[in-house]
Amino acid sequence: MLYAIFGTSRALAVGPVAVVSLMTASAVGQVAESGTAGYAVAALTLALLSGAMLIGLGLLRFGFLANFLSHPVIAGFIIASGLLIAAGQARHILGIAGGGDTLPEILHRLWQHLAETNWQTLVIGLASTVFLVWVRKGMKPAMKRLGASDGLASLLTRAGPVFAIIATTVTVRAFGLHEQGVAIVGSIPQGLPPFTLPDLSPGLIGTLALPAALISVIGFVESVSVAQTLAAKKRQRIDPDQELIGLGAANVGAAFSGGFPVTGGFARSVVNYDAGAATPAAGAFTAIGLALAALTLTPLLYFLPQATLAATIIVAVLSLVDPAILRRTWAYSRRDFASVVVTVLSTLVFGVEAGVSTGVALSLLLHVLNTARPHVAEVGLVPGSQHFRNVLRHKVETLPGVLMLRVDESLYFANARAIETLVLDRLAADPAIRDVVLMCSAVNVIDFSALESLEALATELAAQKVRLHLSEVKGPVMDRLKTTHFLRDLNGEVFLSQYDAWKSLAATGPTAKAG
Amino acid sequence: MLYAIFGTSRALAVGPVAVVSLMTASAVGQVAESGTAGYAVAALTLALLSGAMLIGLGLLRFGFLANFLSHPVIAGFIIASGLLIAAGQARHILGIAGGGDTLPEILHRLWQHLAETNWQTLVIGLASTVFLVWVRKGMKPAMKRLGASDGLASLLTRAGPVFAIIATTVTVRAFGLHEQGVAIVGSIPQGLPPFTLPDLSPGLIGTLALPAALISVIGFVESVSVAQTLAAKKRQRIDPDQELIGLGAANVGAAFSGGFPVTGGFARSVVNYDAGAATPAAGAFTAIGLALAALTLTPLLYFLPQATLAATIIVAVLSLVDPAILRRTWAYSRRDFASVVVTVLSTLVFGVEAGVSTGVALSLLLHVLNTARPHVAEVGLVPGSQHFRNVLRHKVETLPGVLMLRVDESLYFANARAIETLVLDRLAADPAIRDVVLMCSAVNVIDFSALESLEALATELAAQKVRLHLSEVKGPVMDRLKTTHFLRDLNGEVFLSQYDAWKSLAATGPTAKAG
Repeated sequence: MLYAIFGTSRALAVGPVAVVSLMTASAVGQVAESGTAGYAVAALTLALLSGAMLIGLGLLRFGFLANFLSHPVIAGFIIASGLLIAAGQARHILGIAGGGDTLPEILHRLWQHLAETNWQTLVIGLASTVFLVWVRKGMKPAMKRLGASDGLASLLTRAGPVFAIIATTVTVRAFGLHEQGVAIVGSIPQGLPPFTLPDLSPGLIGTLALPAALISVIGFVESVSVAQTLAAKKRQRIDPDQELIGLGAANVGAAFSGGFPVTGGFARSVVNYDAGAATPAAGAFTAIGLALAALTLTPLLYFLPQATLAATIIVAVLSLVDPAILRRTWAYSRRDFASVVVTVLSTLVFGVEAGVSTGVALSLLLHVLNTARPHVAEVGLVPGSQHFRNVLRHKVETLPGVLMLRVDESLYFANARAIETLVLDRLAADPAIRDVVLMCSAVNVIDFSALESLEALATELAAQKVRLHLSEVKGPVMDRLKTTHFLRDLNGEVFLSQYDAWKSLAATGPTAKAG
Repeated sequence: MLYAIFGTSRALAVGPVAVVSLMTASAVGQVAESGTAGYAVAALTLALLSGAMLIGLGLLRFGFLANFLSHPVIAGFIIASGLLIAAGQARHILGIAGGGDTLPEILHRLWQHLAETNWQTLVIGLASTVFLVWVRKGMKPAMKRLGASDGLASLLTRAGPVFAIIATTVTVRAFGLHEQGVAIVGSIPQGLPPFTLPDLSPGLIGTLALPAALISVIGFVESVSVAQTLAAKKRQRIDPDQELIGLGAANVGAAFSGGFPVTGGFARSVVNYDAGAATPAAGAFTAIGLALAALTLTPLLYFLPQATLAATIIVAVLSLVDPAILRRTWAYSRRDFASVVVTVLSTLVFGVEAGVSTGVALSLLLHVLNTARPHVAEVGLVPGSQHFRNVLRHKVETLPGVLMLRVDESLYFANARAIETLVLDRLAADPAIRDVVLMCSAVNVIDFSALESLEALATELAAQKVRLHLSEVKGPVMDRLKTTHFLRDLNGEVFLSQYDAWKSLAATGPTAKAG
């Protein structure tokens, strides 16, 4: 309810999710025994701390950090979490014990317990799955063939999961299948959640501060990646700063109503989106519906088989697993492809936290490595224009004795020495060069390390009686260079445009030759 | 000796260093009790593993990773390690117990033991320190005033520490100060190191693999940062790939001669550099000197006070602490200044490993954050040229109804949405705009996330009946865009130069107005 008021996603469903639940159990387990009153109170405190941190980050407008989740990482994360969730639900279809956070763990436990498969559960689970897949793929056309209007067909399609729930619940009840080993939901405590007060003793806060920070970050990243994916499918936007505040408010709410840390969940949001949620009101209606259900419906769900729930989740999450991203990124850029693949594999093998972190770290690393080995083009004048392009790609004119290099990257510590080495290598290869022009149209920053490297280059060129010129230096870069003695010590000139450099150097040397 | 053959630094002194020693003790302590035969053999194995890893990284040419150490981080690391080493040696000047890896730890222990100060030790330590400072600052001019030739004065200056060692050793011997609590070096095992064989059992290798990898990386980074600093002072170069092989060879050597993991040490290299080391032969001579000393001199060093050694180290390392970097980076760029300060503080407070890692992480983060919020300039034509510059900085002409934006950053996941938002905001502010030209002279990469963002932008502009054009797209970027349907779907054109875009759009619209 609080998220619906403060959040910005139209489809995000906020509540307890698997990863955050696990992190909560581990944090709270450090301070109290499971099942004790202290255990429950510590969970409230954790929710309050996490909520306060999220709201703080939101007020500081730190939501931009979510931009560091690239599309390939998000796509990979969604594929892998979908597979993980589906695999995690498979045990309910089989009616066996299991669990685990990673694919190897889950598969290992499924294998261990496979012999205990309950065939009645399996029949219900498979029948529900097949029915739900049909609802999704074939029901609407079938309804229309039977003469139903488009609206009615859509409505019936959306109500499909409800049919499955009613049908399987009635079946279990009628045949007493729960006495033959079919796991059912059982009794759910009836009534609204109580008002609770978290424990704010400094010792407890000190112990829980770090876990709360981790839960906040992971929860936010998971939530935002789900919200962004669902928003992008409908060309909508979310505001990450406001998302922080929305999630923070929901956590504060959880702390005062007997809850534990919550966030936007993948599975529940997909079900929500899939059911047609178009505004945040869907979340509020869900809350009201849950409250009503908690007051009245829980006895009716007593005989609902867990296999039906599992089938609903599996069919919903697998619909979001979209392998097309692999083909598209492979065609466009191996770097982006690597981000998808690594995110998928690390999420499957090491779990969602490690998966997202690895994906973000890898995509940043690949970006930085790319800028560390910059493209440098020797340029010449496009005949009949004042425009300069790569001598290897275009028919251009060059000046004898003048080396004109366009540096295609900002100059900073990771590539500063590469540029220095490259220029010195070019000079060593062609002793006739007497002027070097660095065309800086793509240099957006020169940091302190690069400045020192440029100073070293200028000194070296001066010793070789070669002049170093700069051209097309951008305003912000020039402002900064003017605070140093680099420009004063430079033995060449700084030209406004590369063409100015060309005119000046052509006037002092032999005439241009065609390149 | 092996480093002198395979390495590239002229001043680096390779041997056991503080950080690596600590890491070794912690790793070996996991597999054997201190003092047992297994303990020593595990250290040999660790050295062999670390050596093999370093050589492997060198053969794979992964030395470029050292470029990620920016000048500000190296400068900060040197300042902080110098202070740490000096503080760590202070206890020998006072003649008290102590130790620790971080400044708070070291100062705390010094304070705890301060009352135990041995005044004879303090006199020797302070006298040595004052003498060595004088040797460094005032001895050469004084010698020349006394009529010594420049060469003789230099030689005597370099021999200064030897005078201190002889004088204090003789003093201790003569007055029996070691019986009054002055700590002396004592007996050093005489003879050459024995030939040893590391234990290569798979279990031991498995346990030590991770510590060996950490030791390799930290040792390499420490060593390269020292070697780069010393090389830069004389405008020399080191080859990081070859450094890996040199250090690896030294570690393999250590494994077969009773040693433990070694690397280029800060303090010992500074003493080496300071003594005038100009070629790797200095390292070989040091090794020969050490061998001779081990065979013959050790009895003579019996009475050498530890305070004299400490004074030598303190004076050497403090000479490298150069606070000018703080002033220079502050003047040039707050970002680089922050890198220095954070590296210094985190090294002092959390130790050298954490310090270097924090510095590298911070400088990368600041670089990435900078590119995440790119500079975008609206440009116009510089009158009388074909050159386009920022309308806010230059007197330029613009075309009515045409928005020309120069994007000063590669487009990638962290900034893709920022550009999209910026263009849409500009359009919302000026409904007269019918053409948008993105001048891509500074766009060196468009990644998959940015491509999706550009596609979203193109769709949005098409809906608003605004044409989107690109200009000056670089060859490598164009190659990649051609693999997608983005260019086919674009409702505008791709111009070779911004001036071509100007001519084309000026021909179809009203005449240019002065901006």
